[in-house]
Amino acid sequence: MTRERRLLILGEGFSHDAHYGKTMRGIIRYGPDPVVAILDSARAGEMHDSIPVVGSVSDALRFEPTVAVVGVATQGGRFPPAWRELLKSCIAAGLDVESGLHEFVSEDPELTELARSHGVELRDLRRPPAGLSVPTGANLEVDARIVLTVGSDCAIGKKTVAVELDLEARRRGLESVFVPTGQTGIAIAGWGIAVDAVVADFLAGAAEQLVVEGAERGGKLLFVEGQGSLVHPLYSGVTLGLVHGSVPHVFVLCHRAGATEIEGSPGHPIPPLRELVELHERISLPRRKATVACLALNTADLESDDDAHAAIESAAAETGLPADDPVRFGSGYLLDAVLARL
Amino acid sequence: MTRERRLLILGEGFSHDAHYGKTMRGIIRYGPDPVVAILDSARAGEMHDSIPVVGSVSDALRFEPTVAVVGVATQGGRFPPAWRELLKSCIAAGLDVESGLHEFVSEDPELTELARSHGVELRDLRRPPAGLSVPTGANLEVDARIVLTVGSDCAIGKKTVAVELDLEARRRGLESVFVPTGQTGIAIAGWGIAVDAVVADFLAGAAEQLVVEGAERGGKLLFVEGQGSLVHPLYSGVTLGLVHGSVPHVFVLCHRAGATEIEGSPGHPIPPLRELVELHERISLPRRKATVACLALNTADLESDDDAHAAIESAAAETGLPADDPVRFGSGYLLDAVLARL
Repeated sequence: MTRERRLLILGEGFSHDAHYGKTMRGIIRYGPDPVVAILDSARAGEMHDSIPVVGSVSDALRFEPTVAVVGVATQGGRFPPAWRELLKSCIAAGLDVESGLHEFVSEDPELTELARSHGVELRDLRRPPAGLSVPTGANLEVDARIVLTVGSDCAIGKKTVAVELDLEARRRGLESVFVPTGQTGIAIAGWGIAVDAVVADFLAGAAEQLVVEGAERGGKLLFVEGQGSLVHPLYSGVTLGLVHGSVPHVFVLCHRAGATEIEGSPGHPIPPLRELVELHERISLPRRKATVACLALNTADLESDDDAHAAIESAAAETGLPADDPVRFGSGYLLDAVLARL
Repeated sequence: MTRERRLLILGEGFSHDAHYGKTMRGIIRYGPDPVVAILDSARAGEMHDSIPVVGSVSDALRFEPTVAVVGVATQGGRFPPAWRELLKSCIAAGLDVESGLHEFVSEDPELTELARSHGVELRDLRRPPAGLSVPTGANLEVDARIVLTVGSDCAIGKKTVAVELDLEARRRGLESVFVPTGQTGIAIAGWGIAVDAVVADFLAGAAEQLVVEGAERGGKLLFVEGQGSLVHPLYSGVTLGLVHGSVPHVFVLCHRAGATEIEGSPGHPIPPLRELVELHERISLPRRKATVACLALNTADLESDDDAHAAIESAAAETGLPADDPVRFGSGYLLDAVLARL
């Protein structure tokens, strides 16, 4: 018997942060299960998107959660030491634990023993499936049009844009499927592979499996969640393996309005949008050249809609491409731009 | 007590093949240990580079090997089924086994049990070290000039070119170190990390560790072994992670004369050399832009030196860069070109 899923999101120390708290935000906005509380002792008593923030696991229990989900993505994907105690408290309180970090909870002897004795499950969303290998060429045979979101940095909305475009396409009656490639996407869609956790040689092979499965799930139009950035000094390898393994027909280029440096890597500039457009088109596989169909601009840092519109118009003028903020103003315009290029 | 290393190279079915047998060739040419025999039943009785080829493990024993080295690199890095019997025969004959495939011999219950009972060691050259993570920025602080070999395809000589340039630099009295990033390089140099076997998110971090260690080993000039190709549909992610993690000052671009398609991936064209030069310069980190210093052309397929010279001249004319085949004609000219750009 599967018990009802009522989520407690663990956001300790990061629930306020759109970058490190992106998993939390994705699950709240797009996940199928109710989020009953958020744990972050620094914000206890506040509300976040109408969800109560609590300071401890015992405070969370009156909201009757059944699953504790790690809602932060740390650099390098390891648990800060204080988090072990938090995880142990969750297990002791009878909650299943779901984590998307690189450090697998289900491989930790202490946590697994505790979970066994409390009869709860530990699930690692980033654990790659067995039997991965290199691409076979099946990616190029997929009977669907493939759209990949790419970006100028991590954590700027590549997953959100893919999810929004897929939602809009399905509202229009198109046979569209969102293809998850990371921990949050997997938490939202209930399937997928976290390509950044795969052995590097099998990156493109994992991406191939994902587009093949997307088509098998009925997608004639696949919106593939992008990862990292071609210009990110830490994660660019993942980005390129995903580009070449998912063999998109078109890209949607995501950018945070006003950003000029890679977040968390000071001194690493983001090239101008026009150069990023050209770089993506140049690096796409010679066998299937992809073009950038449009720009998705994240204007969350701009307070007024007027400023957001001005930033969008400026990006459109710089690149000659349709641009919009699909979260702020809806994704219809960008979907039109994508469909026009397919 | 360490016993003397006398190598039996396992080349079954592939010892004739320069592509899948590249590990064998690298170890024979540059390895520190004597290769006493090569096992390949299809060529039993022949000689290969003055080394006897035998048809079975028992036939190999009169050459008194102590270590059996897997000398082939299969696509996907897994053992063909027939190889299991071969490995078991080696172990039963008292040989240590070294493998650079993705499928780890030291994790195979049957092989480890057999090895234990025969008192031999199983070593996996591709097993990543524990504790890898993302880059810290230490790569950009390394007090050395960094040269990375890159290429238009796999198995065309990136490792060989790096080894040859390092040898030539040391002959000239320069403080040069070869930095191994793959199984054969590790077998040759006795240290290194196989970056293609690392969790994808930690690719650039592994490359950072390698250039840091290269400098700690005394290198003021580091020749980093390249992997894959930016235009390879299977392995490009590894290539880009290595480019951004090893932060080279210059590239040496390797190409097999006359090749127009990715080997093993028909229908995937190799772009013209001029485009490859520009693509590498464009994709290098904005924080440390790298230029291509010269071209290393692999002319092994051309019989006459005249044809080789003509191919080299044509590549030089197309790109405006110094070009040579460092294996056929020596690496002095290319080293001059590299040093001129550093």
